[in-house]
Amino acid sequence: MVHVTQLMENEVFMAFASYTTIVLSKMMLMSTITAFYRITRKVFANLEDCGKGENAKKYLRVDDRVERVRRAHLNDLENIVPFVGIGLLYSLSGPDLSTAIMHFRLFVGARIYHTIAYLLPLPQPNRALAFFTGYGVTFSMAFRLLKSRLYL
Amino acid sequence: MVHVTQLMENEVFMAFASYTTIVLSKMMLMSTITAFYRITRKVFANLEDCGKGENAKKYLRVDDRVERVRRAHLNDLENIVPFVGIGLLYSLSGPDLSTAIMHFRLFVGARIYHTIAYLLPLPQPNRALAFFTGYGVTFSMAFRLLKSRLYL
Amino acid sequence: MVHVTQLMENEVFMAFASYTTIVLSKMMLMSTITAFYRITRKVFANLEDCGKGENAKKYLRVDDRVERVRRAHLNDLENIVPFVGIGLLYSLSGPDLSTAIMHFRLFVGARIYHTIAYLLPLPQPNRALAFFTGYGVTFSMAFRLLKSRLYL
Repeated sequence: MVHVTQLMENEVFMAFASYTTIVLSKMMLMSTITAFYRITRKVFANLEDCGKGENAKKYLRVDDRVERVRRAHLNDLENIVPFVGIGLLYSLSGPDLSTAIMHFRLFVGARIYHTIAYLLPLPQPNRALAFFTGYGVTFSMAFRLLKSRLYL
Repeated sequence: MVHVTQLMENEVFMAFASYTTIVLSKMMLMSTITAFYRITRKVFANLEDCGKGENAKKYLRVDDRVERVRRAHLNDLENIVPFVGIGLLYSLSGPDLSTAIMHFRLFVGARIYHTIAYLLPLPQPNRALAFFTGYGVTFSMAFRLLKSRLYL
Repeated sequence: MVHVTQLMENEVFMAFASYTTIVLSKMMLMSTITAFYRITRKVFANLEDCGKGENAKKYLRVDDRVERVRRAHLNDLENIVPFVGIGLLYSLSGPDLSTAIMHFRLFVGARIYHTIAYLLPLPQPNRALAFFTGYGVTFSMAFRLLKSRLYL
């Protein structure tokens, strides 16, 4: 048994762990929101979810409200996965603490705002700006990583 | 060259590595199952996959069996990504070995059962229970991480 | 503050960090390509993206070019997520440097070729071969991990 906990004594890594846990938990909440709309609106994708009775099959349908949540969820996946992967490596590459925390805060804030803008919905360019902020943060970390530690 | 292997001598981390490798491999198998149904049922999403001949275009269609596998695959992505991200950070935060292993086992078991319940399919609430077990495990690790190591 | 940077002095880990950053950045570019086609072809999924005017609603449609990019993006997610998760653990398990780099290079090359084959599109089996190369690389790392470090 060795000093794994050393990693968790590194402040950048601790901050990364906190922000990542928050943004991944936020992403998971999308499943609950989807389930909420599916159940309250009776809109299902699988026959076994529709309940019993002759009319069950009619609940096998598509609803824009549900699809909107699913698009927001997929967009989260597409953007939070690179953040977690690149952010982890970036955190281990010895960045400046305040720069790193600024990256994490901006990303998490942008993704929370993106979800709000998607679900209400807010008029554009609210969602677009939230998207590009998160996108830019991840590319900024990728750039810094490749600049300082490229090893091919 | 330094003691990276120290990480792999930590028992919680080794257990996390084994369970994560298993659950990610399981997720990858969904691609093979999709390909199997696409080929045996001749259901394709791209024209270049349909083969040649005048009738090729008719295989450009949607099939419920294939869509079911794809929904199970997407559900895996939505749930296994947070497990891997949060689980990695949780493993590094010094949890109790037996508690950690219980989390990993429950999650991996629940996701395997979820796939079986989705693909057969089993009647509800089989799939729902499998889903919420995995979901709860990930939130439990997130909660423990944020409680003990919050650094914003 | 401790020697987190030790991880980044390990050559296998540095190589993993570089290749992962590249392949995740490539995946993120799919969002930009989707946005490019959505805007130039005026094909949107949300009413608030369609602009104003009486006719705005007619841009709420599905286009095969856009769907093709989205399928490529989803396929990236389905394959790059296991690569990042399993690859990270594999990198920490002390593999031979040249073997590890060969794995990373093959995977990243295969995924870049997969995207080209999907978007042009190239005739099959170009895309299928690219897919199975990446798939095989990830399973090869998973196999090596489970063989040497199984801890259940």
